[in-house]
Amino acid sequence: MTTRVAILGGTGYTALELLRILLRHPQATISAVTSRTETGAVGDVHPSLRGRLDLRLENLSPSQLADRADVVFCCLPHVASMEVVPQLLDAGLQVIDLSADYRLRDPAVYEAWYGHAHTDATRLASTVYGLPELFADRIPGQSLIANPGCYTSTSILALAPLLKERLIEPGGIIIDAKSGVSGAGRTPKLNILFSECNEALSAYSVGNHRHTPEIEQVLSDATGQAVDVIFTPHLIPMDRGIFATIYASPRGKPDPKTLLEAMRRFYEGRPFVRVIESLPTTKAVSGTNYCDLTVRVVKGRVLVLAVLDNLIKGASGVAVQNFNLLRGYPETSGLIV
Amino acid sequence: MTTRVAILGGTGYTALELLRILLRHPQATISAVTSRTETGAVGDVHPSLRGRLDLRLENLSPSQLADRADVVFCCLPHVASMEVVPQLLDAGLQVIDLSADYRLRDPAVYEAWYGHAHTDATRLASTVYGLPELFADRIPGQSLIANPGCYTSTSILALAPLLKERLIEPGGIIIDAKSGVSGAGRTPKLNILFSECNEALSAYSVGNHRHTPEIEQVLSDATGQAVDVIFTPHLIPMDRGIFATIYASPRGKPDPKTLLEAMRRFYEGRPFVRVIESLPTTKAVSGTNYCDLTVRVVKGRVLVLAVLDNLIKGASGVAVQNFNLLRGYPETSGLIV
Amino acid sequence: MTTRVAILGGTGYTALELLRILLRHPQATISAVTSRTETGAVGDVHPSLRGRLDLRLENLSPSQLADRADVVFCCLPHVASMEVVPQLLDAGLQVIDLSADYRLRDPAVYEAWYGHAHTDATRLASTVYGLPELFADRIPGQSLIANPGCYTSTSILALAPLLKERLIEPGGIIIDAKSGVSGAGRTPKLNILFSECNEALSAYSVGNHRHTPEIEQVLSDATGQAVDVIFTPHLIPMDRGIFATIYASPRGKPDPKTLLEAMRRFYEGRPFVRVIESLPTTKAVSGTNYCDLTVRVVKGRVLVLAVLDNLIKGASGVAVQNFNLLRGYPETSGLIV
Amino acid sequence: MTTRVAILGGTGYTALELLRILLRHPQATISAVTSRTETGAVGDVHPSLRGRLDLRLENLSPSQLADRADVVFCCLPHVASMEVVPQLLDAGLQVIDLSADYRLRDPAVYEAWYGHAHTDATRLASTVYGLPELFADRIPGQSLIANPGCYTSTSILALAPLLKERLIEPGGIIIDAKSGVSGAGRTPKLNILFSECNEALSAYSVGNHRHTPEIEQVLSDATGQAVDVIFTPHLIPMDRGIFATIYASPRGKPDPKTLLEAMRRFYEGRPFVRVIESLPTTKAVSGTNYCDLTVRVVKGRVLVLAVLDNLIKGASGVAVQNFNLLRGYPETSGLIV
Repeated sequence: MTTRVAILGGTGYTALELLRILLRHPQATISAVTSRTETGAVGDVHPSLRGRLDLRLENLSPSQLADRADVVFCCLPHVASMEVVPQLLDAGLQVIDLSADYRLRDPAVYEAWYGHAHTDATRLASTVYGLPELFADRIPGQSLIANPGCYTSTSILALAPLLKERLIEPGGIIIDAKSGVSGAGRTPKLNILFSECNEALSAYSVGNHRHTPEIEQVLSDATGQAVDVIFTPHLIPMDRGIFATIYASPRGKPDPKTLLEAMRRFYEGRPFVRVIESLPTTKAVSGTNYCDLTVRVVKGRVLVLAVLDNLIKGASGVAVQNFNLLRGYPETSGLIV
Repeated sequence: MTTRVAILGGTGYTALELLRILLRHPQATISAVTSRTETGAVGDVHPSLRGRLDLRLENLSPSQLADRADVVFCCLPHVASMEVVPQLLDAGLQVIDLSADYRLRDPAVYEAWYGHAHTDATRLASTVYGLPELFADRIPGQSLIANPGCYTSTSILALAPLLKERLIEPGGIIIDAKSGVSGAGRTPKLNILFSECNEALSAYSVGNHRHTPEIEQVLSDATGQAVDVIFTPHLIPMDRGIFATIYASPRGKPDPKTLLEAMRRFYEGRPFVRVIESLPTTKAVSGTNYCDLTVRVVKGRVLVLAVLDNLIKGASGVAVQNFNLLRGYPETSGLIV
Repeated sequence: MTTRVAILGGTGYTALELLRILLRHPQATISAVTSRTETGAVGDVHPSLRGRLDLRLENLSPSQLADRADVVFCCLPHVASMEVVPQLLDAGLQVIDLSADYRLRDPAVYEAWYGHAHTDATRLASTVYGLPELFADRIPGQSLIANPGCYTSTSILALAPLLKERLIEPGGIIIDAKSGVSGAGRTPKLNILFSECNEALSAYSVGNHRHTPEIEQVLSDATGQAVDVIFTPHLIPMDRGIFATIYASPRGKPDPKTLLEAMRRFYEGRPFVRVIESLPTTKAVSGTNYCDLTVRVVKGRVLVLAVLDNLIKGASGVAVQNFNLLRGYPETSGLIV
Repeated sequence: MTTRVAILGGTGYTALELLRILLRHPQATISAVTSRTETGAVGDVHPSLRGRLDLRLENLSPSQLADRADVVFCCLPHVASMEVVPQLLDAGLQVIDLSADYRLRDPAVYEAWYGHAHTDATRLASTVYGLPELFADRIPGQSLIANPGCYTSTSILALAPLLKERLIEPGGIIIDAKSGVSGAGRTPKLNILFSECNEALSAYSVGNHRHTPEIEQVLSDATGQAVDVIFTPHLIPMDRGIFATIYASPRGKPDPKTLLEAMRRFYEGRPFVRVIESLPTTKAVSGTNYCDLTVRVVKGRVLVLAVLDNLIKGASGVAVQNFNLLRGYPETSGLIV
């Protein structure tokens, strides 16, 4: 028996990746794809899907969605998401929200970083943060999952094991992160034009990127200490992939073997995190739901290097991983190709 | 004594290249850069020019421009160009127009391909087409030069020698052209986003690209026969460069050596066309005002292969070449780096 | 009951793609991966496969392979392939050969284009050319399949329907083809360095590319007429994908609708060819086993535009398609993701 | 009166950039280009230079070079360089050495990091390190200049002003550096193939890159304190450019304005360092001899962001800047385009 799933906001890159994964998912049936602006066949908007599914983009109300689907993947931008999610929940749908709207527990923090008062603030404290490697046991049966940000997942997966085992200091952590351009979305803007990005490398949102409070909140909650990070994102002339180079201060004399073993212990049995000894590369995880991690000690400092595909493990892949846990399916369903 | 030059429409890629060339031009002084929408320092819009010139973008009238400059490079889009060029000429300025507005001699052809009635049609017949390799003698002292299109220059430079010497048939010529993305401009559009272009190759405007009538008109005029081409442009995941692979039917039995010699004869003494024996590559002309050409005979068919940098020899470089001829400066001034 | 498969020559890009596909193939079990030079874990040579299979590269003899596998995918270069294939067949293995060694029927043609006398010439005439869209009925139960070249498949799939229905002339066909760099393999050479290919576009092997006789042989055989093509390959700064722009002369007055219908008829029920109305893009087939095709009429000439992923539909995907037909599995097994 | 210059080792990317710059240099005449392996015309090895200079690659002895040239730019790899430099100097030539062989003062440090005993160790202590922004006054009239490494220049230019004014701590500085692929040279290797680098991001030489001791030595010497850095290089899918993101601990409470002013003071009158307020991008310095710098304070930490073109300001441009100072020419000769 399969679950009927709908994609809310079907024109962007995360929606495309969701469609690709769900098409091969043995327990999911895509029943609707929505758009407020486009009405064509899904295969016209996403030519790679031609001949793969016979659906058109539709502008559907929450109740129409509830007639068609059991679970909704919400790919709307922030603010738009919190306007519709309460209605979807009221209509009886389970929702996996890929926006930032339900990730921060504190509405004041949300307002400070996103510039909007939160209109569904009462739900924030109880919403489960959908990072299965940390919170798998809280996900089954939830009605709403806040799907993590891409930089966030990379950073948290890299740091959680060492923070949890108190092997590094929780303060002054530096996360130098690099991302492919697809993370910036599919809405035309000057800074993501080919001729601007190609043969170009730049930093952006230095000291004020919105994933900062998300990283700090989740790592603090998960490891029981006040985690504080400096987060510097860079735009890289490639389509897919995130690379995080993380610098932390050790507690006591750091030993590479101990650090690696802590990572391995933490992720034992987790199907999508590969703790490796060689240096990671985004190419090895491109198009997959894997996060590859390793650790080094340089001049007494702990370096963690982490990679994942921003659209898969950083967005749509983890969304399906959450879906699997939510519905009681094998965690890897649809996700290993 | 230098010439004062102004750039009309200074925010795009052709304007940036013009500024780079003119900054090193010993006989030119940049006196104004205009924009209808932006007002910042030129170095803020084009960060590579920081510290190179002390000008702000200004919204200037034709008479203001005439107070400041002798020659105007008009980098406005088509239609916008023909609205302002008559005023610039009336104000006594010499104009090199990089748009398509003054390239076609027949206003009906213009209207058919550009979808706008030409509002300055009487000037079309007498405007000189600024391809110096063919029309150098007509350029000096003109008040208006129609700067050629990038695909057009590539195609014309490749074909003119063989057509002129009647070595190939003027009909049924196939021009399979490939261009970097910068040719599409700097206005944000979905199809030129990095994540759309990277790792992607597509054809566009098959059978109906606007450079087709321009190629045919100029080659017909220059060689005294009705030239007819099939022109197929492709978008290539690179920033700069055009590659044209051209297939023509020979008149009589084609001999590679004869064909190459015809090319060499035609371009003898021309500083910016290099007739070569090996196969050309866009990389060898990137950032330069050169056009590299060669010819092959395959199964009795004549193949011409031509490359140039779409923003330099295909736009701003040839514009300065026209400027040099217009003003009596050495043709290569500012153009050899 | 699954089939045990081995990869002969496991370090290249086609081997990597084969491994990816076979890992998800429900009826295949990868039992060996060989290399004459490397001995590490497969996951060390191909980091994307870490944790996916527990095999090392081994230098295995044909008889050792026969103990381990039922079917061998031979990913050796030409010449190396024909040296080992007879031994593999003698050992009782079924072989899908991805090299060029068994594609041409005439040993003299092989020698002329590949510069080596064929050492297994008697087998050439009877070997089945593994392009399932044309020869699906000949493949089941064969012991040796010659897997097609990437440019070849693109060209044949584009032209076969129109040639078969006598809608285009078989002579003077121009195939202007563009390929990503991965088609050139994984052996370090100057011309495929990043800094040589990036921001560069060039033609190569003009008039003498080895896929030319293969295209002509297969199209001539399949459509019963002497097909003659001019084939011009270009190297594009992208990793994956082939785009072929094909120019043919119509027989009689060409009608776009008739041409498109002929294509649709030819590929009706074929799961991996999508006849589309819009212009194709390599991005839509990247990572898939699809070939997207369309047709246009421009100035009385027939243009066919075709795309596929050179490593999948152009190599490893079609190899698995052949495997499926050979072993009686569903044609799409392992191939739709 | 011009200076005759020779390029020793003319086939690589730094040699190509030197040739480009020297061709437009008003006080230099290129008199020889050498290679131990190739003998063709320079324009055949470097197609972009076709028609620009009439020289062939030659295998010349030091005395032959001394007959032809006054100054030699040595573009040989390390070890090869120290074998020939003493002979060049003995022959009376002035040498600008682009290799690493004369950059480190201590032969033991050289041996530890490069794995070779230094064969010209007595010259190390007295050789001037050719970073004009720090050592312009020592360069005129020297016989040997050690041209800096690309990562090194970026890091030193970024840090020297703040270290000199004691605004940051000299220990525990983190340099997270990102480089285009051309920095890895033109010798074919697997890791710099297009299909390996494209759509890929990786770190390499973590904790053991050879530019580390060079950065530390020069910054320590120049600022009179023991500077200690963690240096992490990354390979970016672009041809040109280095981006360094540097994290340092402030001395006292850091003030962005004070930091920026220290930078501006340090580089006042220096033509090739641009201290900017916005975030830098490699694109703005690509193809130029500029280094763009800025500084930020994030959570009490000092971030310096620096960019330059690895082949120009990071190699061949600074080499010509050294040449200009050596010979008493204007520092910017040939370098501003």
